[in-house]
Amino acid sequence: MLIEGRHTRTIWLEGDGSVGILDQTKLPFRIERLRLSNQAEVAHAISSMQVRGAPLIGATGAYGMALAMTADASDAALGAAYDLLVRSRPTAVNLKWALDRVVARLRPLPPQRRAEAAFAEAAAICDEDVAINEGIGRHGLALIEEIAARKPKGKPVNVLTHCNAGWLATVDRGTATSPIYAAQEKGLDVHVFVDETRPRNQGAYLTAFELGEQGVPHTLVSDNSGGHLMQHGLVDLVIVGTDRVTAKGDVANKIGTYLKALAAKDNGVPFYVALPSPTIDFMVEDGVRDIPIEERSGEEVTHVAGLGADGEMTRVRITPERTKAANHAFDVTPARLVTGLITERGVSPATREGLRALFPDRAA
Amino acid sequence: MLIEGRHTRTIWLEGDGSVGILDQTKLPFRIERLRLSNQAEVAHAISSMQVRGAPLIGATGAYGMALAMTADASDAALGAAYDLLVRSRPTAVNLKWALDRVVARLRPLPPQRRAEAAFAEAAAICDEDVAINEGIGRHGLALIEEIAARKPKGKPVNVLTHCNAGWLATVDRGTATSPIYAAQEKGLDVHVFVDETRPRNQGAYLTAFELGEQGVPHTLVSDNSGGHLMQHGLVDLVIVGTDRVTAKGDVANKIGTYLKALAAKDNGVPFYVALPSPTIDFMVEDGVRDIPIEERSGEEVTHVAGLGADGEMTRVRITPERTKAANHAFDVTPARLVTGLITERGVSPATREGLRALFPDRAA
Repeated sequence: MLIEGRHTRTIWLEGDGSVGILDQTKLPFRIERLRLSNQAEVAHAISSMQVRGAPLIGATGAYGMALAMTADASDAALGAAYDLLVRSRPTAVNLKWALDRVVARLRPLPPQRRAEAAFAEAAAICDEDVAINEGIGRHGLALIEEIAARKPKGKPVNVLTHCNAGWLATVDRGTATSPIYAAQEKGLDVHVFVDETRPRNQGAYLTAFELGEQGVPHTLVSDNSGGHLMQHGLVDLVIVGTDRVTAKGDVANKIGTYLKALAAKDNGVPFYVALPSPTIDFMVEDGVRDIPIEERSGEEVTHVAGLGADGEMTRVRITPERTKAANHAFDVTPARLVTGLITERGVSPATREGLRALFPDRAA
Repeated sequence: MLIEGRHTRTIWLEGDGSVGILDQTKLPFRIERLRLSNQAEVAHAISSMQVRGAPLIGATGAYGMALAMTADASDAALGAAYDLLVRSRPTAVNLKWALDRVVARLRPLPPQRRAEAAFAEAAAICDEDVAINEGIGRHGLALIEEIAARKPKGKPVNVLTHCNAGWLATVDRGTATSPIYAAQEKGLDVHVFVDETRPRNQGAYLTAFELGEQGVPHTLVSDNSGGHLMQHGLVDLVIVGTDRVTAKGDVANKIGTYLKALAAKDNGVPFYVALPSPTIDFMVEDGVRDIPIEERSGEEVTHVAGLGADGEMTRVRITPERTKAANHAFDVTPARLVTGLITERGVSPATREGLRALFPDRAA
């Protein structure tokens, strides 16, 4: 998608053989591009969240293997690079998946062919992510078109989204944003309400940034606002991303998603979840009971980072000095509140039967 | 309640005849007391939000009339002071009510008796507010005691609250907090989840402050968290305040209250609203349809104030430079989601019949 009017992905090859990324810790205040030259720099980029979002972390890890192979393609170096990279974000299932895939591709090869094969595999992982997201965009676009057809002329389709399941979290196009970008390309009149997404402000920092760069009309709102907006007919549909969907369609996503799903249900607003199908975990049934929720530092709640009047990034404390905060990072939206799951294969109801029908090859 | 271990109200008489207040714009970062010596300083304190909360604004306005009468108790001065003060917060119904009450008391009196009578009337307004809040506390305490009796020994009653309907918004004790303080005084084990309450952070700034000063165990959470907490049995009841309750029990309160009420309903958690009975507007029926919702500056969403590393209060921008935000200040929770209304006369169901039965003197 666009940054400063130029098309880019979130990860790319530089002419000198290094791998380029955006430093997402600086967004939206500074647009800084970094060159990663070896696996240590890649591990740091992942652990410090310079890259974030499951698909992008996976792609970045794959390029980390490729950079490692450039310097030393021995079996020992292959194992060491894997160990270093997999530890850079231990909870990232997609990272481990990408690293396993690259290692499986390289292990049978003689060392002198490994670097080239690793770069090819990393590029394939990137291209496959984009293709998946394009599929999500196509199927989600149909939902937006249906709503647009029912709206009076000159009235935009209002989408509400939570957190950032945008192109910045993937290689390109995003998941929840992909239908929105597809609608924009089709010339539909679409407007997005962007939840701020406390405590880490991914909506305010990232979704507002990418929609702004892409020229999609949008309005930032506090996380508290969605219910009121829906009560007053200001939201036509909700589209969010997800970290994990269970076999029966429960959806784990950024904390607060469940509250928006409740409001959508209470007001008859369709609530969709956009996801690449590997996000479906057919081994887990009951999301509320069985998905462990990460608890992060309370400082993410008690402190807020932003740009000061002096143009410097700074962090302020918004509480009394001794206030303790709890910081549950995700919540689970029960399947009964989900209108549909937008995948690269099509839109599935959030039910065991629906998911089985769409993914007979993967469901147990 | 306590500040730095000493009991205080939010407004008091100083020995020199001036009126003392806490500068609430500095909380929780600085505890600064101000002396207001004339009606202009009172009007400024109200308009600049050094005092906030309907009951406290009313009480402060009444003292503004008294200070004005000390300098000039003529009919002309009485009218001028009223005009100045009523304009200091045009939307504050409670301010107009208090000023009208003081003027009605003073008008028939000869000028030389007006100052003393005005101070007496302002003091009465303060004492009546405290008495109302004590009543709310008593009736709310019974609800907490019921829950405490069902909990295993050593397990606290967990209350979730949104925004600040605390003693800082009143003369003392608060509305939503009054049952909590009553429970603390009774020796019950109570713990409060405090919603941050974006965009103005009244939970993080004020509720966390007053609970901390009072020694009530509490945990700050992002506004996104309540649904997750309730899904996992971590909230025993919700108590919030309100700006206006309709004749059928719809509740206007800080934006985001509706989302918490939905989550409470979905998880079988009791959802109570604490209010002084003048907050009930028997002239309005349907809150969602008929209560106008104030829209405030988007800068309250795009910017956050807090304490910088240098110990100075500072404001940071959390969005791209051009991001626009919408800022609806309140929402309306339909009566069907409200378990009960805790008033100074008792707990009423959120129904027309319930309110009529408890307030036969006021209901139409």
